[in-house]
Amino acid sequence: MLFDKIDLYCGMNQIHRNEIASWFQGLQNSICQGLEKADGQGQFEEDTWMRTGGGGGKTRTLTAGKVIEKGGVNFSEVYGETPTKILEALKLDTSNFYATGVSIVLHPKSPMLPIIHMNVRYFEMSKPDNQTPKSWWFGGGIDLTPHYIDKQDARFFHQQLAQVCDKHHRSYYMEFKKWADDYFYLKHREETRGVGGIFFDRLSDQDGFTKIQRWEFVQDVGQVFVPIYRHLMEKNRNLPYGEAEKQWQFARRGRYVEFNLVWDKGTKFGLDTGGRTESILMSLPPQANWSYNYKPAPGTDEYYTQELLRKDIDWINGATT
Amino acid sequence: MLFDKIDLYCGMNQIHRNEIASWFQGLQNSICQGLEKADGQGQFEEDTWMRTGGGGGKTRTLTAGKVIEKGGVNFSEVYGETPTKILEALKLDTSNFYATGVSIVLHPKSPMLPIIHMNVRYFEMSKPDNQTPKSWWFGGGIDLTPHYIDKQDARFFHQQLAQVCDKHHRSYYMEFKKWADDYFYLKHREETRGVGGIFFDRLSDQDGFTKIQRWEFVQDVGQVFVPIYRHLMEKNRNLPYGEAEKQWQFARRGRYVEFNLVWDKGTKFGLDTGGRTESILMSLPPQANWSYNYKPAPGTDEYYTQELLRKDIDWINGATT
Repeated sequence: MLFDKIDLYCGMNQIHRNEIASWFQGLQNSICQGLEKADGQGQFEEDTWMRTGGGGGKTRTLTAGKVIEKGGVNFSEVYGETPTKILEALKLDTSNFYATGVSIVLHPKSPMLPIIHMNVRYFEMSKPDNQTPKSWWFGGGIDLTPHYIDKQDARFFHQQLAQVCDKHHRSYYMEFKKWADDYFYLKHREETRGVGGIFFDRLSDQDGFTKIQRWEFVQDVGQVFVPIYRHLMEKNRNLPYGEAEKQWQFARRGRYVEFNLVWDKGTKFGLDTGGRTESILMSLPPQANWSYNYKPAPGTDEYYTQELLRKDIDWINGATT
Repeated sequence: MLFDKIDLYCGMNQIHRNEIASWFQGLQNSICQGLEKADGQGQFEEDTWMRTGGGGGKTRTLTAGKVIEKGGVNFSEVYGETPTKILEALKLDTSNFYATGVSIVLHPKSPMLPIIHMNVRYFEMSKPDNQTPKSWWFGGGIDLTPHYIDKQDARFFHQQLAQVCDKHHRSYYMEFKKWADDYFYLKHREETRGVGGIFFDRLSDQDGFTKIQRWEFVQDVGQVFVPIYRHLMEKNRNLPYGEAEKQWQFARRGRYVEFNLVWDKGTKFGLDTGGRTESILMSLPPQANWSYNYKPAPGTDEYYTQELLRKDIDWINGATT
C-alpha cells in the first residue's frame, strides 16, 4: 500500500502531525477515487476553505451520482487558540489545539442502500508556552444507517469492522461497538441511528499502547471504508423499490437530521465554535420529511427495521438466528 | 369576548393557574376553529397524551389542508418534580414546577405564504415544602418566516404586534421585537429565521406590573394570532408559483429545521427533559431539502429575501422606503 512505509521515516512513537495530516489527504483522495469508480457517474467537486484563526480544509461533494445522491468527503487541518467552548467541554485551561481528520457521509438515491458515515481524526492540545508536553489523541468511527435493515448486510458490516479491530487489539471491537451503540443514539426517540458500527475517542498512550499502534489502527479504519461500501453498493444497487420505499427513506432521513442536529457532538462543536457551516452540514440529506406521529404497521418491512433500531444487538453472532 | 370576565372571579393579582390553563384550552379551541374556517378544507385531529410525572396535553394537527400543508396547535399542562436539566439551567435547587401553554407552528403549502409560529406560556416554581412563596412568570412570542419576504406583509405583521404591545406598555414592542431578533437567530448561518416578531420570557411582577396586567397582555398576544394569519392567507393564497419557488421553500424549511433542532431552547429542553417527542417536533416541516452550499443569484427574489434575513430592521417605519 501507498502508506505502508510511513513508520520508516518517523521514529517509533514519534509520528508527526504533518505526516498524519498528509496521510489523511491521501485517504481523502483514494476514497473519492474509489467512490467515483463504484458510482460510475458522479464526480466530486472540491471547495478549498481557510479558517480564521488557523488552518482550513478541502470539502469534496458529489451530487446526483448514479448511486450516491449526495455525498461529502471532507479533509480538514485546523489549529490555533482553542475556542472557549471546547476548553469548557474538555475542562482545560487556555491552550492551543491542532486537529486534522477526514469525515464522510453518503446518502444513496436508493432506499435499499444504507447511509454510511465515517470519521477519522487526530487531535493535539498544547500550552502556549511550548514547554509543557503536548497531549494527543485519535478518534473516529464508522456507522451504517440502512433505511431497511438487512441482517446479512449488518453482519457483513460488523464482521469487516471486527476484523480491523481484532488485528490491533482483542478488546477493540467489543469496546468500540458498544461505544457506537451509545453514541449513535436518539434519546428522544429511544432508537439507534442505524445498526451502529464502531466509535472511539481519546485513544492515546494509555494501557501501554504506542502512538504508532493507535495510528496504524486509525489508518486501517480509514482504509476499510471503500471496500465495505462498495460491497453494499454492488449487492443492493439493483434492488427494486417504489414510492412507498422512497417515503420511508425520507422519514428515516428525518431521523438522521434529528441525530446530527440534536445529539451529534461533532456537529454541535463545529457550529458552536465557528466551523465552516456548509462543510459541517454536508452530512444532511438532500431531502427529509416529517409526518406527525407516523408509525409503521406491524408486519411491514418498515416495522421490522424500526424494531431493530436498538442497542446491544450482536449483529455478528446473534441477529440472524 | 368569552374570557373578559376572568378577573371578576379571581382577586386582583390572584389569578390561579387553573384559570390560566383553562383559558389556554379555550384559546386552542378558538384558534383551531379559526384556522379550519380560514383554510376551508383541513380539519384538526387530536391526540391526548399524559406525562409520566404529572399532567399531559392535547396535540392537534392538521395535514393536507387547502392552504396549510402541516400545522400543529398544542395545548399542554404539565407539573411535578422539576427535571434536573431545567434546575441547572435556571440555577435553582430542588423544586416543583407547573407549566401550561399553547404552541403553534403552521407550514403552508404555498411558498408564497409564510411559516408562522406562536407560543404563550405560564410557569410556576415552588419548593416542595409548600411554605416558600411560589415564583411565577409568563413567556411567549409570535414570529413570521416568509419563504419570500414581502415588506408590506412584514410591516402589517409588526404593526399588529406593536398595537397589541402598545396597549399594555409603551416599551413592550421595542423590547420584545429586539428579543425576537436575538432569539430567532441562526448563529451558524449569521441569519435570522425570518422577519422576527416579538419574544418575551420571565414576565413576572417586576417593574410594578401586576400579575393580571401580564396575563392580559399574554391573552391579547394569543388572540391576535388568527386575525394576523388569516389576513396573510387571504392576501397571498392565490399567488402563482412554480417548481423553482417550491425548491426554495424546501431550502428555507431546511433552515427552519436547523433553527428548531440546533438553537431553539424550548425544543431542546423538551427533548432533554422527556417531553412528548411528537408534540415537540410537530414544528418540523413536511419536507425540507439541503443542497451543498446553495446561494441564490444576485438580483433574484430569493437573493432579495436572503439579504433581508438580519436583525434590527425597522419593519414598520424603515423597511419599505
